Amino acid sequence: MGGDFHWVATEPSGAGRDILPADAVLFGNGRQALYAVLMEGRRRFGWRVCHLPAYICQSVVQAARAADMECRYYRALPAADESPDWPPFQSRHEVLLSANVLGFSGLDLVPPDWPNENRIEDHTHDPWSRAACESRAGYCLVSLRKTLPTPDGGAAWSPLGLPCPSPEALIPGHAAAGQEKLAAMLLKRHYLSGMAVEKEEFRAWQIQSEAAMSIQPTSRPLPVTASMLPHLPWRRWRVERARNAEYLTDRLLGSLTAPALEPDRREVLPPPTPRRFPEQCPFAVVLLCRNRRERDRLREALIQRRVYPPIFWPLPEEAARRHPEAADFAARMLALPCDFRYTPEDLEEAAEVIREFFQTEAG
Amino acid sequence: MGGDFHWVATEPSGAGRDILPADAVLFGNGRQALYAVLMEGRRRFGWRVCHLPAYICQSVVQAARAADMECRYYRALPAADESPDWPPFQSRHEVLLSANVLGFSGLDLVPPDWPNENRIEDHTHDPWSRAACESRAGYCLVSLRKTLPTPDGGAAWSPLGLPCPSPEALIPGHAAAGQEKLAAMLLKRHYLSGMAVEKEEFRAWQIQSEAAMSIQPTSRPLPVTASMLPHLPWRRWRVERARNAEYLTDRLLGSLTAPALEPDRREVLPPPTPRRFPEQCPFAVVLLCRNRRERDRLREALIQRRVYPPIFWPLPEEAARRHPEAADFAARMLALPCDFRYTPEDLEEAAEVIREFFQTEAG
Repeated sequence: MGGDFHWVATEPSGAGRDILPADAVLFGNGRQALYAVLMEGRRRFGWRVCHLPAYICQSVVQAARAADMECRYYRALPAADESPDWPPFQSRHEVLLSANVLGFSGLDLVPPDWPNENRIEDHTHDPWSRAACESRAGYCLVSLRKTLPTPDGGAAWSPLGLPCPSPEALIPGHAAAGQEKLAAMLLKRHYLSGMAVEKEEFRAWQIQSEAAMSIQPTSRPLPVTASMLPHLPWRRWRVERARNAEYLTDRLLGSLTAPALEPDRREVLPPPTPRRFPEQCPFAVVLLCRNRRERDRLREALIQRRVYPPIFWPLPEEAARRHPEAADFAARMLALPCDFRYTPEDLEEAAEVIREFFQTEAG
Repeated sequence: MGGDFHWVATEPSGAGRDILPADAVLFGNGRQALYAVLMEGRRRFGWRVCHLPAYICQSVVQAARAADMECRYYRALPAADESPDWPPFQSRHEVLLSANVLGFSGLDLVPPDWPNENRIEDHTHDPWSRAACESRAGYCLVSLRKTLPTPDGGAAWSPLGLPCPSPEALIPGHAAAGQEKLAAMLLKRHYLSGMAVEKEEFRAWQIQSEAAMSIQPTSRPLPVTASMLPHLPWRRWRVERARNAEYLTDRLLGSLTAPALEPDRREVLPPPTPRRFPEQCPFAVVLLCRNRRERDRLREALIQRRVYPPIFWPLPEEAARRHPEAADFAARMLALPCDFRYTPEDLEEAAEVIREFFQTEAG
């Protein structure tokens, strides 16, 4: 369980017709989409300062820096009891990026005092939430390969009808990175189907291709990605993700509330009630451990049973100092993937490893 | 019809278990396999001169030159009434490459006076012929992507048990070329399945990746290729190719022997009798036109009906001057693909275009 998507053969179906808003512009990846939007805002609206959540993927920060923005950070955690600590709106030269991190946020995405045209929303973790569909932000953007089995691809659109930038061509450097990712996905498929493949081979390609995903020049995505999008059954996949998340959350809560344990410092996110689908759909189930050490040992136990939970997001030292709450969340969290690839049996197996781990802890 | 293979999803089946001899060594492509064998022969046996058929793919010649061989050429055409004009064996420092060009040759591959250890056989166009299976040559080699839907791959083995060279690693340059080819194959699959793909996109990648296929350093093939080989149903595909060739040959002979035409200068190869399968299986059906002009006009007519027959092999000017018979064959030939991708209906359509063309010619 876990890790990047393998290749999923796509047949023409039309099931993905409305996978993105009609006016969405495709990019090579999400960071390119953000970079292009910020450059557009700089040129058209004089944006100079970008407010970002402190707890965010560093490629988002790098894209803002590449667009020569002065970056400021605000507190925003995907925890149940937290609302973002919105910065006040001060000037037309400022833009605020909010993100539906892990698919847990709802109307929380909208800071009350900010003009819509000075807002960007990142819907990568649930491109089909109500917040995304009903957004009134100046711009919305997504990275596609986080929720869909595409080798690359990002998109930007403007719910407000602002002019949306567009990449001119498929850039050779981006094409090479995307082709490497595609080869890794196919190889992973062969591996999973039982053919003679060394896992290290596709892992190395995955890592290399991710490292080669650049911010600029902005590029069109691989034509393979563009052509498959209108045929991907995203609705069904999203239902499966929501169902899997609910199932896994239930199983994990059982482990954490066993009397011998200390549930007060452990947490499973999102909380199982109220039912939020289809308004929201978790990107993954998050397990918050008591501390980094426990998390790391649990991760090791999971990896030994071939469950590979990603960690969102290791922060650079300076960011961690400025925002200890974000660093603490990143240090204690494990993301348990629950997308359409997994059956209840797969999830049960992961839950069982976690249950055993905590029982041993308590013993 | 025609052109490079699209991607064919491979499921584990074991159908390709004996797709190559057990001791075959995989390379990035066929020219690397030849280069490696020649370098091995140079080092071990003192090979300095390589005799090559004058009518051959130029990448074969380039591989021999890259191995610093003095290249000499002998007459050998895949025509029905021709035996190769074998050079005499003169010295242990010479090696002779024979090739089962277009899959038409049988025992013709073996020059009577040459010691086996000074012979290399190229079985690219029919790796599973009796001549290949029963070969006693020092080395045999194949390029895989000509008969199989793999993005890359070549192989060498020694029926005599001579030491066979082996590439040490997957070379990054080769990996990039192979990944580009793989992306082109997937895109072609999307195109054929009716998704929104511009043909120019995968065509450009096919051409670029072929141009990037290098001779040295020798490389392992993509792991995708190595892992799929043991599962490719080559036996079934070969039967289909033979059946298709027979079907198409029959249809074309009808066109050429119509009384109003001038059949004496036109020819269809291989001749339909005697039945040679499974000893041999044509790589393609060859139509020999009266002259280059007729061939080029017929090709144009086929392309307009979306049949893309390759031409084997345009010769460099110097080679054409030295071997006018090879140049004449190359100028008059069209290869009509007949592999497992095509149904009788596809072949009928191509035959119909050709019939119409010759009727108009005669009118």
